Amino acid sequence: MKDRISAYDVAEKAGVSQSTVSRVLNNYPFMKETTRKKVLTAIEELGFTRDEIARSLASKKTRTIGLILGDITNPFFSESAKVITRKAQEMDYNVILCNTNHSEENLNKYIQTLMGKRVDGIIVASADKDNQKIKELYDKGFPIILYNSIMEHDHANYIAVNNYKGAQLAVEHLYHFNHREISYIAGPSKYVTTHLRNLGFKDALDKFGLKMNEKFIYDREFSYDEVYLFAKNLLNQQSRPTSFFASSDQMALAVLDAAASEGISVPEQLSVIGFDDIDLAKNQFIGLTTITQPKEKMAMLTLEKLVSLIEEKEHVDAPIQIVLEPELISRKTTGIYKS
Amino acid sequence: MKDRISAYDVAEKAGVSQSTVSRVLNNYPFMKETTRKKVLTAIEELGFTRDEIARSLASKKTRTIGLILGDITNPFFSESAKVITRKAQEMDYNVILCNTNHSEENLNKYIQTLMGKRVDGIIVASADKDNQKIKELYDKGFPIILYNSIMEHDHANYIAVNNYKGAQLAVEHLYHFNHREISYIAGPSKYVTTHLRNLGFKDALDKFGLKMNEKFIYDREFSYDEVYLFAKNLLNQQSRPTSFFASSDQMALAVLDAAASEGISVPEQLSVIGFDDIDLAKNQFIGLTTITQPKEKMAMLTLEKLVSLIEEKEHVDAPIQIVLEPELISRKTTGIYKS
Repeated sequence: MKDRISAYDVAEKAGVSQSTVSRVLNNYPFMKETTRKKVLTAIEELGFTRDEIARSLASKKTRTIGLILGDITNPFFSESAKVITRKAQEMDYNVILCNTNHSEENLNKYIQTLMGKRVDGIIVASADKDNQKIKELYDKGFPIILYNSIMEHDHANYIAVNNYKGAQLAVEHLYHFNHREISYIAGPSKYVTTHLRNLGFKDALDKFGLKMNEKFIYDREFSYDEVYLFAKNLLNQQSRPTSFFASSDQMALAVLDAAASEGISVPEQLSVIGFDDIDLAKNQFIGLTTITQPKEKMAMLTLEKLVSLIEEKEHVDAPIQIVLEPELISRKTTGIYKS
Repeated sequence: MKDRISAYDVAEKAGVSQSTVSRVLNNYPFMKETTRKKVLTAIEELGFTRDEIARSLASKKTRTIGLILGDITNPFFSESAKVITRKAQEMDYNVILCNTNHSEENLNKYIQTLMGKRVDGIIVASADKDNQKIKELYDKGFPIILYNSIMEHDHANYIAVNNYKGAQLAVEHLYHFNHREISYIAGPSKYVTTHLRNLGFKDALDKFGLKMNEKFIYDREFSYDEVYLFAKNLLNQQSRPTSFFASSDQMALAVLDAAASEGISVPEQLSVIGFDDIDLAKNQFIGLTTITQPKEKMAMLTLEKLVSLIEEKEHVDAPIQIVLEPELISRKTTGIYKS
């Protein structure tokens, strides 16, 4: 413990953060000469040598966190990232963001890169159900948390919304608005998040005695252009759906885009409901009905828990597994279906 | 040069990338045993020792690029980042993203962090006019490029759109649609980008003999909530503007939000034009009239030029200074003003 205390002491005595102490000892560029001197003086006055402190710091933290996103252009992810970086800055952590474009190969590569850059912990915001690298890190006790995703694994840490229930709320809302023909932009089941929403959707249909029309289900990778074409094509058919439930607000926007291109008015002729409650959904010019994820709360909690793991305030043998409740927010894009 | 050639040779002989060679020698986790063996065998067969190659690589590149964004939730930035990361992956570079939340203090901190993580080069997507750290890096010949921003400095590298002209196009469009009372969401002049747009706006007003109404100008930091309140307040006044020009599409969305909250219909009662042409502007449900930045082209060019600098294909004493042409795209949110 002596080493640890010494580094804290130097920082405190010099009136700077520990990372500043580290920067001085690592000869970082852009260091104010006065700051540098303050740190070196503090080390001397406390009776340590420069090398002693440098060694103690070498084994320690970088105060850098990695945050891996599936698609940086999906506002749900970018808005979450903004909350996490802002909160991290307050806690004197830097956040390094990586964008995988929903490729597992990229995800694995970025985990490797982040480990190489010696981050203290990692938040993964979209992961394939059975990703092996993440499981390896869990097993090693490395601080890593899934955001908006869960993983079936003894040591898995995750913070997510109840995706199963969210999908049920969406179907329930449309059903009560008299919709019986529901198209579902599901996304691929390989992600835990979409997998659970898909189960929730199917069970809700069963509950209301509705049949699933396979032609109304989009289960390929999320792609704005492809979802746009899928919706446009469906809307051109004689027996078209009266409503769409999209597994993300971004995909709901693609459906609205397709409806507008066909001159179909929302909600008079078509109801559309999304998932996520991105900031844009609240925009009254758009007013997207959606299932809310408590994004701000989820993001803050994820960062706090990760920092606890990094600073060893929580034991890794008691995994962090938190599931929050979603809520339906009815706005302008859904309405009662009149046959 | 011998060292350099040796690392290339090992990679080629083993049929892997140079970064894989580096990973093997640095004992990265998650390395396939077969890949590891292939690399070690190649080193042996070429008559090198493991240490020789490790030393040669130690002085070399990390194949990692830093990309600093002002606001990750502004789609212009996230969409640009997506293009850059995708293109970088093709070129076997990793991209580390940082989000400054438009704070110069954070910008400086992230530059320091990225240097500490030994990135090969940096792209800065929003910078204050006179940032000293960036100038220092230019002077040192470190590979750094401004994206969507210019800087008056002998060694500055930048790729941007003609922001001055873009603002003029916007005013011209509104003027031809009979608008004489134009509110302008300008943003602060401390950024080069907004500074130039502000000049373009003022000169265009002069050109058409229009007077600038100071009350119609928003020149504080970009904040969705504040722009929303500013617009809502203006729209409540007796002598309200007939149109808004917003210096970013994101801020134009805040204006549309405010108009909808006041029950003002667009474009019948109010015209709104943005800047950037984010993907959402093209969405036909929204159809935002805007000034396009050739985002895809700008982003690709920026990455290519940065890699050229890193790989020393271009000389640093001939700075890269490229200004592309903007274009007006008229969609659904602007119309002829009928008094």
